[in-house]
Amino acid sequence: MIKYPTGQSPKTNKGAKVPRSLSSANRGMNLEEDINISNQYYIDKGIALINKRPTPINVVKVDYSRGAKIQNAYFEKQSTTDYNGVYRGKYLDFEAKSTKLRTSFPFSNITSHQIVHLKRVIKHGGIAFFIIRFEAFEETYLLDASFIIAAFEKGGRKSITYDSVKTDGRLINKGFIPRLFYLDIVDLLYF
Amino acid sequence: MIKYPTGQSPKTNKGAKVPRSLSSANRGMNLEEDINISNQYYIDKGIALINKRPTPINVVKVDYSRGAKIQNAYFEKQSTTDYNGVYRGKYLDFEAKSTKLRTSFPFSNITSHQIVHLKRVIKHGGIAFFIIRFEAFEETYLLDASFIIAAFEKGGRKSITYDSVKTDGRLINKGFIPRLFYLDIVDLLYF
Repeated sequence: MIKYPTGQSPKTNKGAKVPRSLSSANRGMNLEEDINISNQYYIDKGIALINKRPTPINVVKVDYSRGAKIQNAYFEKQSTTDYNGVYRGKYLDFEAKSTKLRTSFPFSNITSHQIVHLKRVIKHGGIAFFIIRFEAFEETYLLDASFIIAAFEKGGRKSITYDSVKTDGRLINKGFIPRLFYLDIVDLLYF
Repeated sequence: MIKYPTGQSPKTNKGAKVPRSLSSANRGMNLEEDINISNQYYIDKGIALINKRPTPINVVKVDYSRGAKIQNAYFEKQSTTDYNGVYRGKYLDFEAKSTKLRTSFPFSNITSHQIVHLKRVIKHGGIAFFIIRFEAFEETYLLDASFIIAAFEKGGRKSITYDSVKTDGRLINKGFIPRLFYLDIVDLLYF
């Protein structure tokens, strides 16, 4: 159940503390993994309860003679977002995306269903945001969903510039565990 | 996207209003379907944003030469609950179960992971409950999760009696659309 490495404190590991600059947080781990590890840390520490929604799969054929082995199925597009949960009594909902680009974050991987979903989250009093990683700079930002919604609905340009993300979003501090201190930014922006 | 039947009002259907006693709500539809239709209604009416989490599937083999066809996969147990979302600014989380039994609701389909999950929901200020259907009586109850958690953790008896559910829970009114007016009970118990 505990999915992050434990026993890394100097006490139990006889001083073998991993320096931050060499930790795995800086070795290009993928964003989903970083968030999952951070979420598990937040859950185990009793800080928040945020989970990844499973990828929806359209199951076509199941062989029940072999312990319900799925023999034919297809991935479906997520019509909501990847993550949601509860933090300090509030409903939290977000999508996480990486880009290799240096000047902008493209909307190509965001669906209009997700935009509609995030608008509804805001309408019902929830907290909605994006976590956006610019891989080239090893920078990860938390950006309130309203900025992406506005840019998405304006049409025309199908992306948001790196500079806008830098200006309107907040840089998330990296660590060993959690990998991303993203709730620090949530505290700052929403509480 | 709209998954419930529409245009059933007398005005658009020339008086062909479906009497409640003959409507599909009373013809033994399954609970999951009833909740999904109710949730879609609540979403479309802007009342709440509650979704079913997809069933987690462990994908073993994918054939990418055939448009990402999944050729080998297995269903995984849900470690959280089936439904969550936001309503009137609050985080909502629940599990829905049916039983054919007449005297009790057995815990056989509830995992200890789900109990842990629901305790966390409550701890973080969310609303946690069960929707329990007794198929024999065509009755569906909303029961605050704390009752199930307490009974589950007491050990011994691996069920909760029908009488307890009747006493501690609230009967959910049925309709055509939504099939289950379960948010009426949420209003009553939590707001």
